[in-house]
Amino acid sequence: MKAELISIGSELTTGRNLDTNAQWLSRRLAEIGIPVGFHTTVADDLTDNLDVFRTALRRAQLVLTTGGIGPTLDDLTREVAATVAGVDLFEDAASLEHIQQMFARRNRVMPERNRVQAQFPVGSEPVRNEKGTAPGIWMKIGESFLGCMPGVPSEMFHMFETQIKPRILAQFPTSGVILERKINTFGMGESAVEEKVSDLTARGHVPEVGITASDAVIGLRIFANGPTRDAALAQAAPIEATIRERLGELVFGIDDDTLQLAVIRLLNRHRKSLSVAEGVTGGMVAHLLATVPGASSWFRGGLIAYDDTLKVQLLGVPSDLIAMHGTVSPEVVTRMAEGCRARVGTDLAIATVGVAGPDGGSEQKPVGMVYAALASADAPTVVQQFSWTGTRHEVQSRTSKLALNLVRLHLQRKP
Amino acid sequence: MKAELISIGSELTTGRNLDTNAQWLSRRLAEIGIPVGFHTTVADDLTDNLDVFRTALRRAQLVLTTGGIGPTLDDLTREVAATVAGVDLFEDAASLEHIQQMFARRNRVMPERNRVQAQFPVGSEPVRNEKGTAPGIWMKIGESFLGCMPGVPSEMFHMFETQIKPRILAQFPTSGVILERKINTFGMGESAVEEKVSDLTARGHVPEVGITASDAVIGLRIFANGPTRDAALAQAAPIEATIRERLGELVFGIDDDTLQLAVIRLLNRHRKSLSVAEGVTGGMVAHLLATVPGASSWFRGGLIAYDDTLKVQLLGVPSDLIAMHGTVSPEVVTRMAEGCRARVGTDLAIATVGVAGPDGGSEQKPVGMVYAALASADAPTVVQQFSWTGTRHEVQSRTSKLALNLVRLHLQRKP
Repeated sequence: MKAELISIGSELTTGRNLDTNAQWLSRRLAEIGIPVGFHTTVADDLTDNLDVFRTALRRAQLVLTTGGIGPTLDDLTREVAATVAGVDLFEDAASLEHIQQMFARRNRVMPERNRVQAQFPVGSEPVRNEKGTAPGIWMKIGESFLGCMPGVPSEMFHMFETQIKPRILAQFPTSGVILERKINTFGMGESAVEEKVSDLTARGHVPEVGITASDAVIGLRIFANGPTRDAALAQAAPIEATIRERLGELVFGIDDDTLQLAVIRLLNRHRKSLSVAEGVTGGMVAHLLATVPGASSWFRGGLIAYDDTLKVQLLGVPSDLIAMHGTVSPEVVTRMAEGCRARVGTDLAIATVGVAGPDGGSEQKPVGMVYAALASADAPTVVQQFSWTGTRHEVQSRTSKLALNLVRLHLQRKP
Repeated sequence: MKAELISIGSELTTGRNLDTNAQWLSRRLAEIGIPVGFHTTVADDLTDNLDVFRTALRRAQLVLTTGGIGPTLDDLTREVAATVAGVDLFEDAASLEHIQQMFARRNRVMPERNRVQAQFPVGSEPVRNEKGTAPGIWMKIGESFLGCMPGVPSEMFHMFETQIKPRILAQFPTSGVILERKINTFGMGESAVEEKVSDLTARGHVPEVGITASDAVIGLRIFANGPTRDAALAQAAPIEATIRERLGELVFGIDDDTLQLAVIRLLNRHRKSLSVAEGVTGGMVAHLLATVPGASSWFRGGLIAYDDTLKVQLLGVPSDLIAMHGTVSPEVVTRMAEGCRARVGTDLAIATVGVAGPDGGSEQKPVGMVYAALASADAPTVVQQFSWTGTRHEVQSRTSKLALNLVRLHLQRKP
């Protein structure tokens, strides 16, 4: 059992609009235990639509489409569904009346061209659209089921939940639940993390475990399934425990947890205040922390010393220290963190320096070379160096995470 | 001539991640006159990948893939490309050396697992990846061309522009250009902007003009076409002139221009330095400015006074002023901007205060209510109030833009 989602419209294949319907539907189908094997997007072209529908019906037992059921000439889905099923179209009186009523509710007369929206392939079931004029289509073609919905997200969401999902559940009643659990790690590269769990990520492992990298955060995804959500959770639990045991303090959270959320939680738990002194990250560390609701309880603020004179003026870094070691040095980042902690008056302070690029690199200090430091009352200042490859934005974003991770490790290691 | 884009990865078919690579590639291909007929997304499954590759090579003359070329066991693209071409894999010594060098630059030894990334289908051309360890693949299979790129957007963007696009142009000499020109505005809502240009956005207008809203930036997109880029530009030019005339100083840039880029350009042109004092935006204004390469010439840094005590301590706002008017007031934001300008010593300074939410709102100062201020040497401090609806992130992001827009208007109005 596998599903395919088809998104129809030239505004998608030209790249003018971004398709988000397929993502939304994938998540909803996972919740009822139906795995999605394919998303296909196709332009408003008859031949291409026929090809895509035939391909989907050959390889998937459930095919859901969005778009192409409007009243205009480039709306081809009705015709395509009838052609691949080898049947004619018929006009459904109830649907026509519903479309006329939709116009009447907006005090308008139905344009004649909307009449085409009441046409359906013979043998199909018209599907009521409560949010717009375009009805959907539900039909069996060969051994597969086809559900056609509008492309407008709000109309599609409603039609799926109220009309299509019940029909899917009626046809595929044994479907259980697919549950995805993601373990988020920071501090080690993708390959190195995978080496620690390669027996789990091997093809054919049950439950399936995948690994993904997103801007230096390495995630381990467990895809568990079972007849109920609890059963799926029970399948995932021992694998999660194994992963946590092997990866230890690399793990900072699950699912949508971010490093900044982990840091804010730890600050609250340990009742420690934090300030930031940002060089290369230019405000991004503070920005990430400030995105977390309730951040203000323990995150106080900080100093953006993007310019070297401000490192001296606002943070008290001696100018001869900068002259001797250069800004991008463990000495300077240490003094920035300590100066910030003293001047703002927080329990903890983090600082960043580095070369964000694209210009400004040298042989000794190439683009991507950065330092982060953490100053605290109860331990000597910690400095971490790293050399990133990537764009300016990536260097700033990953260095922000490097700095946040210093706070996380410091607090997480406390009893 | 038609192209198909294949996005590979179970994180896409499960709906965990949203694919944006296909949209980006569709736009780039349109620019060189290549229409995209299909986007296909497929899970990390060998049988399904073989099906998708064979289907694409049957119906498209150019097939570009993203993802599936990492070092892990679920990276199947190398194997799939070889299988559909009916050839074996070989190890490319130059690619292996390049991968080893990428690790050496990060002071790491290449894990044995990454060796697989130097394998290529016999008859294919290894494609250098300057931004990561996964090389791409270029090969002819039957009558079609296949280009395989990484899924990481920054790596893919660079590989497409420098390596894949030249190979496409060599095989498919361009027959015409579709050009999209976007005029970006800030300071007025979507409906109000549309009223000013409704004759241009009417259906059937040549060239087509669309309107999009993205986080308070309203964009007017002109879709022009012609045999050459110059011809398409010539079609767009008079419409762009009309739009600029009607919208006046609402316009801050074109295409991918951002408000922060407009501000950095204006600071450079007028040789004015800028600092920021951030309350509600918590570092986001500084972060946006710091994302612009070369920002450090005139953007000096600033103070994040997320906590009220820091507004007093770091910015010199009198505590009785906060007690009298509340933090979210024109009085306090004015003193923050002026205090920042004096303490950091810049020509201009901006400040923000407000209620980001989701909690902390009151009847008089509801969630979304914000102030931005601009202090300068040559004019009284300007304060702007706004009430946003939206999430915490949206309130912070839009308020950052409100503050940046004050700098833009101040400098743009100068002779």
